[in-house]
Amino acid sequence: MPQQLAHSEVKRAALIVIGNEILSGRTQDTNTSVIAKTLNQKGIVLAEVRVVPDIEARIVEAVNDLRGKVDYVFTTGGIGPTHDDITAASIAKAFGVPLSIHPEAYAILEKHYGPGNFTDPRRKMAMTPEGASLIHNPVSGAPGFVMGNVHVMAGVPKIMKAMLDAAVDRLPGGKPVLSRTVDAAFPESKIAAQLGDLQKKYPTIDMGSYPQYENGVATTQLVLRGTEEGLLETAAAELTEIVNALALETPQAVKP
Amino acid sequence: MPQQLAHSEVKRAALIVIGNEILSGRTQDTNTSVIAKTLNQKGIVLAEVRVVPDIEARIVEAVNDLRGKVDYVFTTGGIGPTHDDITAASIAKAFGVPLSIHPEAYAILEKHYGPGNFTDPRRKMAMTPEGASLIHNPVSGAPGFVMGNVHVMAGVPKIMKAMLDAAVDRLPGGKPVLSRTVDAAFPESKIAAQLGDLQKKYPTIDMGSYPQYENGVATTQLVLRGTEEGLLETAAAELTEIVNALALETPQAVKP
Repeated sequence: MPQQLAHSEVKRAALIVIGNEILSGRTQDTNTSVIAKTLNQKGIVLAEVRVVPDIEARIVEAVNDLRGKVDYVFTTGGIGPTHDDITAASIAKAFGVPLSIHPEAYAILEKHYGPGNFTDPRRKMAMTPEGASLIHNPVSGAPGFVMGNVHVMAGVPKIMKAMLDAAVDRLPGGKPVLSRTVDAAFPESKIAAQLGDLQKKYPTIDMGSYPQYENGVATTQLVLRGTEEGLLETAAAELTEIVNALALETPQAVKP
Repeated sequence: MPQQLAHSEVKRAALIVIGNEILSGRTQDTNTSVIAKTLNQKGIVLAEVRVVPDIEARIVEAVNDLRGKVDYVFTTGGIGPTHDDITAASIAKAFGVPLSIHPEAYAILEKHYGPGNFTDPRRKMAMTPEGASLIHNPVSGAPGFVMGNVHVMAGVPKIMKAMLDAAVDRLPGGKPVLSRTVDAAFPESKIAAQLGDLQKKYPTIDMGSYPQYENGVATTQLVLRGTEEGLLETAAAELTEIVNALALETPQAVKP
């Protein structure tokens, strides 16, 4: 498991997805996997994700519960101009600091919209918790921000990705997390015992087994993850041998 | 917001997604939106989602933190035969009861695999916390289970959906949550003030604003959710009038 990786080797992060639209099923979240992969390359593993509604108390609770437990917290969503965009105010409350106009954000937004069109709702996007530093938004003007170890980003995937790259660029990370996948053309229960033994043999590698069912046929993807490339290759080669040997056996039940 | 809906009208649920594969970015979760929509039809709103790794202490923590806060908890993932499938053991620990062979599950699985092929890893799938009742799995044999208000389901989407339908069928729900969407061909900052006023006028309706950017053009989806169809229609009609009036105005900045 990623969390088995030594703390000295990787950093740990949590993601808070802020948005009723995810909880209602209206929107399919795609940010989590993008964030996870981007962080992995930087040697940061995602230790938890929470999806919370647009309710201040719930956001404050999640932020304060998680920011002490991991190295970095990321949030997505709720930084726009409408009444349901309450992330900045919630982060200010979580940190016990006032929400105030960030002069640099104000200047960016005023320039972006033009002075005549810089309405109150748009001014709202220049508000950050006091002490925050900005995360530049090359797509649509309104910036994200960093407060303590909490990185506040937009929810729109394209904007989120631009902010994530900008934010992660500045962070101390760890050893990149690498993975190898071995496909098995049989159900996972057939390899469960040997895989468990292999996991015990290589405790610093996270071994996962993911069953798939297509047209009634059960197959398995076996995924190895770790920070040491040599060890990963050795374990993957060993696993491939096991898979090949099992595949040659008289087919057991094809049932998963 | 869904959580503004009166407790007498809807039930509240939490989802715990158990799986390193989601946290590593390898797998894109699609179960959350399916679960949310299915529950909404039954008058149950999703109040929170947590994605946790395949680590017993983390699963126990999430289960015990959430099961007292909501009417129903659902979990996905980790009920297969391999070493990383630790959900049943974790739920038993969360409830402080032993994990033991469930005779009905044992019988189902023995029949499914055939006595000669009913290996130890497969027997593991017949283990549930003591006192659990089964959730039937019409797809691949191994059942889910209900322990207290916690509904334990498979992670594979097709199996999860079959279990969800079986589980939800038995649950007391509330009034179905309905929604109306109004599209606006302009950025959300243009309607932010009026939308905020409308939200105040209809406090029992959850109003969300979702910006979209395609080829540099900013548009907005406005979503109204509630349990009273008549009120929802009235609010949606009012919002449509506002959107139409704003669309006719001299275009402000097209910037989001």
